[in-house]
Amino acid sequence: MKGKFVVIEGLEGAGKSSAIANVITHLQAKGIETEAVREPGGTPLAESLRDLVKKKWDETLVPTTELLLMYASRVQLVENVIKPHLMNGTWVIGDRHDLSSRAYQGGGRQLGDELLQKLRGLTLGSFYPDLTILLDVDEEVGLERARERGELDRIEEEDLAFFKRTRQAYLNIAAKDPSIFVIDANQPMLKVHKAILRTLEENLF
Amino acid sequence: MKGKFVVIEGLEGAGKSSAIANVITHLQAKGIETEAVREPGGTPLAESLRDLVKKKWDETLVPTTELLLMYASRVQLVENVIKPHLMNGTWVIGDRHDLSSRAYQGGGRQLGDELLQKLRGLTLGSFYPDLTILLDVDEEVGLERARERGELDRIEEEDLAFFKRTRQAYLNIAAKDPSIFVIDANQPMLKVHKAILRTLEENLF
Repeated sequence: MKGKFVVIEGLEGAGKSSAIANVITHLQAKGIETEAVREPGGTPLAESLRDLVKKKWDETLVPTTELLLMYASRVQLVENVIKPHLMNGTWVIGDRHDLSSRAYQGGGRQLGDELLQKLRGLTLGSFYPDLTILLDVDEEVGLERARERGELDRIEEEDLAFFKRTRQAYLNIAAKDPSIFVIDANQPMLKVHKAILRTLEENLF
Repeated sequence: MKGKFVVIEGLEGAGKSSAIANVITHLQAKGIETEAVREPGGTPLAESLRDLVKKKWDETLVPTTELLLMYASRVQLVENVIKPHLMNGTWVIGDRHDLSSRAYQGGGRQLGDELLQKLRGLTLGSFYPDLTILLDVDEEVGLERARERGELDRIEEEDLAFFKRTRQAYLNIAAKDPSIFVIDANQPMLKVHKAILRTLEENLF
């Protein structure tokens, strides 16, 4: 692959969107072609799946179903958008990827990381991001910011214990994976953005 | 489980719908409560997934994505509809189940039965039908009947080689699994229906 796949991860309200804009500005100033993608979503079918997964249903959305829909969306995005861009030399900046499922469905929904890793292997094989930045934010601070932005979707409406488990899963996985860099997103935004760019420079150039 | 889960399988045009009506009439005459379900589909979310999977997209629908959507629909149906009915003592008659994925995605799409079995284990665990009837029809005869019914969906539009592989996978799997009974659906319908009822009587009563 000629391009690189950089993923920005974190809870709602961690500051992913402004971090992504910052990363893209930095890369473009270096003359690198970039493409921003988001998960779930990013292709016509994957965006339909995003709508289904965020919608509030009259039936229980079974945690395993939620997980399978996240992977269906992800496989579609990886094969139809991310890989073709990487092969062209474009850098792809992802708003969430596989680590979100390991944190939200594995941790938050308590499906466990073993199942998550097996499903990842079956569906994505040897495809991994080159670098993942985890914006770690206190779950109460993050949720408060998400609430200020407007109405919450089905997943954002979960209770605080769900987001505590999700945050803990994020941190546990990051502690064991040298390609995931944790940045304290409770700091002022300027410091967070500096830390992100330093991480990129030290590890990808 | 107090009820039993009976699945009718086969290619397009194998005669599943009339077989299901026949089975239900027979069971109800014995005073058994029955519920008919179909896959993909059978819950509001699962029916939305059915629409997505049958629709013709401008993008490639990646075989692994198709597989994950089939399982998402299946898990939702099993947990929200099939298991509650079986626990109540109702017999559930399924128009397709897991064996369809093993035949169509495993065989037709050539994803292989090993992946299929692993995914089944991860998502459905120890849940299996009590009995499966495979209506085996010549793929050309089946497709001709499906064409006569009207416009074909995305999967029905596949070429004959796809349905040959699917039929072969059906038969290979059935040869190894004593809970799957193959009935020659090239015979006159009356003979097929008699064979189905005899299979039910000999194995479930």
